[in-house]
Amino acid sequence: MEKTDNSIDSVSAHYPLLETIDSPADLRKLPAEKLTQVCAEIRQFLINSLSNNPGHFASSMGAVELTVALHYVFNTPYDRIVWDVGHQAYGHKLLTGRRDKFRTNRKFGGLSGFPNPEESEYDTFTAGHASNSISAALGMAVASALQHESPKRNVVAVIGDASISGGLAFEGLNNATMTRNNLLIILNDNDMSIDRNVGALNSYLAHLTTSKAYNTFRYRLYRLLKKMHLVNDGTKDFILRFNNSIKSLVTRQQNIFEGLNIRYFGPFDGHDVERIVRVLGDIKDMEGPRLLHLRTTKGKGYTPAENDPASWHAPGKFDPQTGNRQSEPHEGVPPKYQDVFGETLLELARSNPKIVGITAAMPSGTSMSIMQHEIPGRVFDVGISEGHAVTFAGGLAKDGMRPYCAIYSSFLQRAYDHIIHDVAIQRLPVTLCLDRAGIVGEDGVTHHGVFDLSYLRSIPGMIVAAPRDEITLRNLLYTSQVADNGPMAIRYPRGKGKNPDWKVPMKAIAIGKGERLQDGSDVAVLSIGPMANLVKSAITKAEADGISVAHYDMIFLKPLDEELLAEVAAKGCPVITVEDGIKEGGLGSAVTEWFNDHGHKVQVTRIGVPDSFVPHGKVPELMKMCGMDADAIHEAIVNAHKSDK
Amino acid sequence: MEKTDNSIDSVSAHYPLLETIDSPADLRKLPAEKLTQVCAEIRQFLINSLSNNPGHFASSMGAVELTVALHYVFNTPYDRIVWDVGHQAYGHKLLTGRRDKFRTNRKFGGLSGFPNPEESEYDTFTAGHASNSISAALGMAVASALQHESPKRNVVAVIGDASISGGLAFEGLNNATMTRNNLLIILNDNDMSIDRNVGALNSYLAHLTTSKAYNTFRYRLYRLLKKMHLVNDGTKDFILRFNNSIKSLVTRQQNIFEGLNIRYFGPFDGHDVERIVRVLGDIKDMEGPRLLHLRTTKGKGYTPAENDPASWHAPGKFDPQTGNRQSEPHEGVPPKYQDVFGETLLELARSNPKIVGITAAMPSGTSMSIMQHEIPGRVFDVGISEGHAVTFAGGLAKDGMRPYCAIYSSFLQRAYDHIIHDVAIQRLPVTLCLDRAGIVGEDGVTHHGVFDLSYLRSIPGMIVAAPRDEITLRNLLYTSQVADNGPMAIRYPRGKGKNPDWKVPMKAIAIGKGERLQDGSDVAVLSIGPMANLVKSAITKAEADGISVAHYDMIFLKPLDEELLAEVAAKGCPVITVEDGIKEGGLGSAVTEWFNDHGHKVQVTRIGVPDSFVPHGKVPELMKMCGMDADAIHEAIVNAHKSDK
Repeated sequence: MEKTDNSIDSVSAHYPLLETIDSPADLRKLPAEKLTQVCAEIRQFLINSLSNNPGHFASSMGAVELTVALHYVFNTPYDRIVWDVGHQAYGHKLLTGRRDKFRTNRKFGGLSGFPNPEESEYDTFTAGHASNSISAALGMAVASALQHESPKRNVVAVIGDASISGGLAFEGLNNATMTRNNLLIILNDNDMSIDRNVGALNSYLAHLTTSKAYNTFRYRLYRLLKKMHLVNDGTKDFILRFNNSIKSLVTRQQNIFEGLNIRYFGPFDGHDVERIVRVLGDIKDMEGPRLLHLRTTKGKGYTPAENDPASWHAPGKFDPQTGNRQSEPHEGVPPKYQDVFGETLLELARSNPKIVGITAAMPSGTSMSIMQHEIPGRVFDVGISEGHAVTFAGGLAKDGMRPYCAIYSSFLQRAYDHIIHDVAIQRLPVTLCLDRAGIVGEDGVTHHGVFDLSYLRSIPGMIVAAPRDEITLRNLLYTSQVADNGPMAIRYPRGKGKNPDWKVPMKAIAIGKGERLQDGSDVAVLSIGPMANLVKSAITKAEADGISVAHYDMIFLKPLDEELLAEVAAKGCPVITVEDGIKEGGLGSAVTEWFNDHGHKVQVTRIGVPDSFVPHGKVPELMKMCGMDADAIHEAIVNAHKSDK
Repeated sequence: MEKTDNSIDSVSAHYPLLETIDSPADLRKLPAEKLTQVCAEIRQFLINSLSNNPGHFASSMGAVELTVALHYVFNTPYDRIVWDVGHQAYGHKLLTGRRDKFRTNRKFGGLSGFPNPEESEYDTFTAGHASNSISAALGMAVASALQHESPKRNVVAVIGDASISGGLAFEGLNNATMTRNNLLIILNDNDMSIDRNVGALNSYLAHLTTSKAYNTFRYRLYRLLKKMHLVNDGTKDFILRFNNSIKSLVTRQQNIFEGLNIRYFGPFDGHDVERIVRVLGDIKDMEGPRLLHLRTTKGKGYTPAENDPASWHAPGKFDPQTGNRQSEPHEGVPPKYQDVFGETLLELARSNPKIVGITAAMPSGTSMSIMQHEIPGRVFDVGISEGHAVTFAGGLAKDGMRPYCAIYSSFLQRAYDHIIHDVAIQRLPVTLCLDRAGIVGEDGVTHHGVFDLSYLRSIPGMIVAAPRDEITLRNLLYTSQVADNGPMAIRYPRGKGKNPDWKVPMKAIAIGKGERLQDGSDVAVLSIGPMANLVKSAITKAEADGISVAHYDMIFLKPLDEELLAEVAAKGCPVITVEDGIKEGGLGSAVTEWFNDHGHKVQVTRIGVPDSFVPHGKVPELMKMCGMDADAIHEAIVNAHKSDK
């Protein structure tokens, strides 16, 4: 684990305007012509702060002007801003009373890296999984209308062009006009996801931008009519019809949003803060759902990030002057699990033409990019659409392919039904590769991959495995390729493994067979996944206490290794289960059930994520908090041994 | 439970053409002008058969021509037809060798009411949950291209206008042009879901239909160019540009599908089979994804169904001559659980203005229609979009409302992540009302609501309850309204309860408190939900054997009633848990874990759905198959008692 620098920002700087803004009310006291300077100061603050205390960088840099404009025009927090994902909400945090705490960003006990309603009334809704802002904001807008709030509350959803391609966002758009509401959707279009954005909608948005003459014309016309007091509720229909007529005269543009009855404005330059303020002022009081399309540049204002926005999504520490990023040594260092996955998949795909790879907007994050680079025709980046990713994999598998679908564990929750309905019922040979499983650390509550063991175990016929190390991950990937028909889930953690020498020849693992890592007689520990490493440390301590501990790596949560469990039961000693998932329904449950069902009176101590949502912080801090670190395991061994005497 | 009539169709009839068709190959031998008669015979067959052996009716009646045309034009099963949901696939079953077995439709061991790949090679993909056909078909089309199948395989997705509004369908559309494929999407547009369809996309489709002059013109032009051999791969781009130019000249139409780069054809009359055959022939060999929009009438060809398609979605038995449906007595009969929900919600909503109702395209099915009828402004039918339904509920709850979100248990799987991310993390007071929980019977494998107890239990802070009867359901609904903040799930079964006199004053139930229904000393049974009724029968038998049985209704799976469990443990007798959900992670797991965690050496027998997918049939047949009927519970009591001696 890297050390944290808890000192203040390494580059000290002075922010004359920003330092006067302790809440958006202070911002709103400034004349509009000062806003450009506010934006410049926010950018400088972000550069200084994030170069030292890493976080998401490029998204927030691109959203500075729209953030300032929203808080300037709208009466936050009474008016609601709903951020989508919220990578881009750092500027929002700086303007809403959290500037002084920003150095605690993403640290245990400090600010969350995403909007978090527990942290501030300005953070209106949980924002960690993409595409939820329109639905949530629509709910707020409808709630306001139903409660006859006065003054009328404005609700604004801010969604990126990648997030808007998710099915949930479409469902929100499709329902936006079904009720009386005044939802405003800001489309923050930077043509990027974390990686470059994909999908037909994205091409479409690009096209809108290149043919913007008409839209600009229409907006100007609208302003003119408004000045002439020709626009009000009574003439609304007339104006709409008129606009459509103009459209047919001046453009061949097909506007998807207007097809869904959402009035479209844009595209505008998302970095012209005074212009955005004017536009927002103009469309603020219009009735009915509207969408404002802003073109922004991810990483705006910091050249290295503008030039390579994907790498600067979350760049780690960097030198603010030079843009040099703290490079990591490569030789002789253990690999990231994602790279073991990516490189192994490529190896397998080279010799097996049936293998295809699927990623949902995370080619770099999952290292699916490694296969994509060499065999682009067999890798599919489907954008932010985890449900489609899994159903698409089902279709591929049904007609003969071997899809490997790599999705972060917590995002795969979106595809729970698709796994059951479109894969498991048909026993299709889809391999689900769950990256970022377990406690992920700084990304926090929305990103921990702690439910997967539990929800996957309940699916009939699903093989559920978790490797304890890089070589086991390789072997599991190899195994899933040659296994009999049926789906298999392999979950592995964020971050680095332990073994620099992992590129060894692969071999098949027997499905549902665990491994005895060491024998012992006083206590037996059954672990799954890389928790085995913490167990090893705990056992070393316990042995120093004179306790003899057996350690088994189950490898498979499902099917369970019944032979192994019978061997453990025969010892007649207490058992400890260790997993990095929620305890309800996971390994501890499975083992306890098995002992019970087979009439073995074995006392099981279950170590895992307790029944609560886990905040953000460093992984070891969170493990300790959850009672899952080596000390806690050691203590459990000692206690189990004691109570057995 | 109703009795089944296993006799042959009550109205005998002769089907001169249909009887010669044992596979689509036979159909393809007929001249096109005979197809109208084939359609008429299929309709007559459906009327005769379904009037006696109930099933989904109106959807299949509306899809007869498109079904015949697809099998006539395409080389099935080599070419793939992927049905969405599959209510409408009865005609498809009749044409693909299952005419003689059709009388076993939806019966235990008989034909499935939906396409089922285990049943026929013509059923290409599981089709029970809406909106998956485009993604699955895209997978098949890509698989075919990657494997260089020869002759080129055609893949057709058939999707209704309700299903296409689901987010998954949009994700499929958005990805359709990202790869080389020749996917054909048939939009079967009858302006209906099970109830009337909603959403902006639906309004949009209606608009397309009313402005069809241009599209018809364009199609005619395309045919002309094709005849003149001006259309081929080389000129494709030219034609596309040309088409767009025409569009700008003759219409103001904004085409959403073309905005997504999918070529749009239509709308055409979906009941003109010869025309559909011609159109399909024309566009069959075009490259790239295409969408053919057919206007159909749900219930077509049977006047009573055409006039009231919602009621005729699944009408039960009826008189084919008169259209009189077997009416059910109302007075003094126990109500359906859904009606207890619907009427109780209205009662609560009358006095609590914060209450709003949300349904995802199931106002009738969930009886949300009862509140909708009286307070339409506070009921939201969001169409087929379960994810949006839950996130929208989250937004409503965040700003002060009390949303009740009624969704069938198995469909709520689509919203698993939304429950976690958009409701539970924020502890929002959303009440999830899971209708059709447990074994649902004839709808089969895709519709059983057996995963909910398991996946909901793993969510921190979620209250999970299941009433054993109508009055408890009422009280739980009342309780969720007055409970402290936080989400609550109430799951209840399909079908009727037991108590005609259920409309009694409501009272709050203590959260997490179960009830001792009867005391006993030899064996203790802990049940949840209406399984209590089977337990009662089993206990009566056991008592006749001289076994003293205690029976507890847990009511809440989460939080568990620890006081009750301690009382049970103190008895020192064996325990049997009974639930109508998957055993992995449900009530049996929770109870077993609790006894283990608290050091009670209690032997638990867990009765529930075993670790496999459950087929279709009558509920009692399936309960027996799963070892969950009264006999099985009785046997478990006897065995537990025996082994305890």
